[in-house]
Amino acid sequence: MTDQPTTRDGFAEPFLLEVLASGGLDAAYVRAEGNTLYRRGEDGEEIAVLDFVGGYGSLMLGHNNPEINDRARELLDRQTPVHAQFSRHPYADELAAELNRIVQRERGDDESYYAIFANSGAEAVEAAMKHAELDRGLRLSALTEEIDAHLEEVRARVADGTATVPPRVAGSADELIADVRRRNEEQLARGPLFLTPEGAFHGKLAGSVQLTHNPGYRLPFKSLAAQARFVPRDQPGALRKIVDEERPHLLDLVVEGGRVQVVERDHPLFTAFVLEPVQGEGGIHELSAEFVAEVQEVCAEARIPVVVDEIQSGMGRTGSFLAATRLGLKGDYYTLAKSLGGGIAKSAVLLVRKPLYHGQFELAHSSTFAKDAFSCLIGLKVLEIMEADDGAVYRRAAERGERLLGMLRSVRADFPETVRDVRGRGLMLGLEFRDQSDATADPLRQVARSGFFGYFVAGHILREHRVRVFPTSSAVNTLRFEPSVYVTDEEIDRLEAALRDVCAIIRDTDGARLAPIG
Amino acid sequence: MTDQPTTRDGFAEPFLLEVLASGGLDAAYVRAEGNTLYRRGEDGEEIAVLDFVGGYGSLMLGHNNPEINDRARELLDRQTPVHAQFSRHPYADELAAELNRIVQRERGDDESYYAIFANSGAEAVEAAMKHAELDRGLRLSALTEEIDAHLEEVRARVADGTATVPPRVAGSADELIADVRRRNEEQLARGPLFLTPEGAFHGKLAGSVQLTHNPGYRLPFKSLAAQARFVPRDQPGALRKIVDEERPHLLDLVVEGGRVQVVERDHPLFTAFVLEPVQGEGGIHELSAEFVAEVQEVCAEARIPVVVDEIQSGMGRTGSFLAATRLGLKGDYYTLAKSLGGGIAKSAVLLVRKPLYHGQFELAHSSTFAKDAFSCLIGLKVLEIMEADDGAVYRRAAERGERLLGMLRSVRADFPETVRDVRGRGLMLGLEFRDQSDATADPLRQVARSGFFGYFVAGHILREHRVRVFPTSSAVNTLRFEPSVYVTDEEIDRLEAALRDVCAIIRDTDGARLAPIG
Repeated sequence: MTDQPTTRDGFAEPFLLEVLASGGLDAAYVRAEGNTLYRRGEDGEEIAVLDFVGGYGSLMLGHNNPEINDRARELLDRQTPVHAQFSRHPYADELAAELNRIVQRERGDDESYYAIFANSGAEAVEAAMKHAELDRGLRLSALTEEIDAHLEEVRARVADGTATVPPRVAGSADELIADVRRRNEEQLARGPLFLTPEGAFHGKLAGSVQLTHNPGYRLPFKSLAAQARFVPRDQPGALRKIVDEERPHLLDLVVEGGRVQVVERDHPLFTAFVLEPVQGEGGIHELSAEFVAEVQEVCAEARIPVVVDEIQSGMGRTGSFLAATRLGLKGDYYTLAKSLGGGIAKSAVLLVRKPLYHGQFELAHSSTFAKDAFSCLIGLKVLEIMEADDGAVYRRAAERGERLLGMLRSVRADFPETVRDVRGRGLMLGLEFRDQSDATADPLRQVARSGFFGYFVAGHILREHRVRVFPTSSAVNTLRFEPSVYVTDEEIDRLEAALRDVCAIIRDTDGARLAPIG
Repeated sequence: MTDQPTTRDGFAEPFLLEVLASGGLDAAYVRAEGNTLYRRGEDGEEIAVLDFVGGYGSLMLGHNNPEINDRARELLDRQTPVHAQFSRHPYADELAAELNRIVQRERGDDESYYAIFANSGAEAVEAAMKHAELDRGLRLSALTEEIDAHLEEVRARVADGTATVPPRVAGSADELIADVRRRNEEQLARGPLFLTPEGAFHGKLAGSVQLTHNPGYRLPFKSLAAQARFVPRDQPGALRKIVDEERPHLLDLVVEGGRVQVVERDHPLFTAFVLEPVQGEGGIHELSAEFVAEVQEVCAEARIPVVVDEIQSGMGRTGSFLAATRLGLKGDYYTLAKSLGGGIAKSAVLLVRKPLYHGQFELAHSSTFAKDAFSCLIGLKVLEIMEADDGAVYRRAAERGERLLGMLRSVRADFPETVRDVRGRGLMLGLEFRDQSDATADPLRQVARSGFFGYFVAGHILREHRVRVFPTSSAVNTLRFEPSVYVTDEEIDRLEAALRDVCAIIRDTDGARLAPIG
């Protein structure tokens, strides 16, 4: 057995590999350290590639962080139990307590959160969807039971003559009650709905993929699970309009002054509003304070829990532990993953605000692999590193982010006809190229129209500059930069040279060099 | 920071811990090796607990298997890249190729399977559900496009006089076409359906939980995703009846001899039949050869792909790599997880039979954590150990399983009034107690009626015998035994003593000793 490249036929996603190969992106990496991945050259020598992809946000502390790897080795040496389901997990409690302490500090309040562990970000989102749906179901049951009791009360009071049904309301109490039940059944047949901003990405499992805006990811699986309404990020009032539009009512009967009245009750149709403070896959879009304020206001009014998905933006990436902090966004739920695993473990967590939490969820939901000592203790090590020296990692993320953003802005200033926008926060930054679909040069236009523009750019930068960057399939003209907090000036300079080269090619040439293979 | 128990308030699933504590199951384990977990005594000394839970099937090779841990350390020492998404992953190809070789050997044919990697068994099931739904959607689109073309052809041919609509069919071609479209739209509005046996367990994410029979796990989340029909395991003809009952038809028009005829076309409503060869969570039930034969026959006729979920039963547990092998069950998809991670990694894989595979799935589905070098290379090490010496691990699993089953049968023979059944295969065995809900002794009856019978039994065995066993919430009277392949005669003897003690308590006493805390 070997972990070196083999020449066997590929059974593991061969089609993706063809796509990668067409852009020259099919390198095989054999070693990784800090912000560097190494591949082998033709003579077996190591070739360093500077990595600005950073595991899509999972490497806040770099590839193979020595402190974290030491911790992992120590856990192996100590024969730490990984599989001890249904026992006491003090490390999980400790990690949850530490997360509470940090989140309370960032929120500036003393709200407590219970923790449900998972194995991936998508699993944490699924847990959030399930918990919120459990909560919705319990509220809905309480409401329908209350309405049922009211209907029976009306029936009894009309029968004993202490209440009457006004003729303009219905012919008889029985008719009225049957009519109310029929209308309510129609309403209750409507499935639950989620809300999420346009451009959202929350994972790709059967439930979470429905909250993911990109139609290529979502639509083939649309029939599998409950749907989301996607809310425009930049239209004030849009959320309120959608909620008013979709929010149905259940009918209830009350007796006032001996007369039976029909009243409307809010039907909790919306399971949750799920949102990323800074959208990653969607192309690096930080939500505006105005949008966030509207979300908080409308959701509070309509009792819709707010799930803040910090899987990519959290763990210090934007200069604070949570990206929500700066936006004043306060969640009922938070999801964390990616760098929580320290670059080696697969770890994710859902935090649920105490007053909304249902203990019974713990009996209904679980996972063989989750809440294990290995990933919890790695998670604690990650937090220890981040919190050390009064949060030096967060300060450094902010400072390095400013440096990187300054560089991107200078590139934009020098190539205004090529670079459309530069945006983001901390070490979660994006550079958007102007669309070249109508370029006069054939090669450039073809690359742009392939649907893989940013991937071809990434291929060029990898081949010519040995720098690894990527767009996302949801925002193919935007390169994302998510290096570790240890990114150096020299590494930023190397990225700058690569970006200036590619901007010059787009501005000054026919673009053929971007797609030498495809 | 410490990984020792702390006295902080519990934020990580405190309610579950209370349930565990009420049965005396709230031990904190600090070390694990082979089939043994260690907790600390009051003086800090290690107390060994013999583990027959085995990570619910994840520890075929034992806790902290030294060869696997050496491999993990080596991967850390070599600075193996964990996060190198969107690059060439030769280790994933190698693992997929090795799985193909093994599966082909067990199936006795040369079918090839493409591999999609995931982080947990539930994620692999979700990937199967998504892939099968993509396939269903593509078949459905092709069918509806064909029908649309036929309708337009009928319209044109009636217009140019080359075909007529018989009066008994409709008044006019336009009316007929409108009627066909309306009926088809009604049919197409029906969501996809999955099929799975009663007692099934396939995970707890939003999609997979719908395939999980236990209503406590499933019903609170029923509105979240597409539903399954649960098929009785022991009623010949039941599956065919359900498929006939549920399977709708779409209407199509054909022209025969110049006359327009209405014909029925099969509507692919069923996304997949998903099943475990040996149900684990459901209480250790091996499917019968008759049931399997009916599944294969009906699914082939109705073009319903068969997903064989080997997450718990596979990886050698029943004496062959796949539990399906002995049953003659051949899947279009297979899912594997648990022991694929070697007790340390979180690894899962979906295998899809080549002729059914859609390459575009690789562009639609992915996961940041999946297909990483660490878990793939651990998976290769696991397979290397299992395949060594011409499959000695599988032979040993069969032999150890016979030894363990023989012991369970002897207990049953001596306690026929207490033990209802003993069943399973290889190292996936169960012992079912007779229901004590109507016991005359108060304590025993109360324990039985608590809904946690097997957990109280497990608590007694843990306290008194330092042996760890568990039932499942779906089959609370059945203890499951899934030790590693290295289980010794002496370990089996210790379990025997514990089981004989608990059987004697149930038979001869009021049962108070089973619930000293609760």
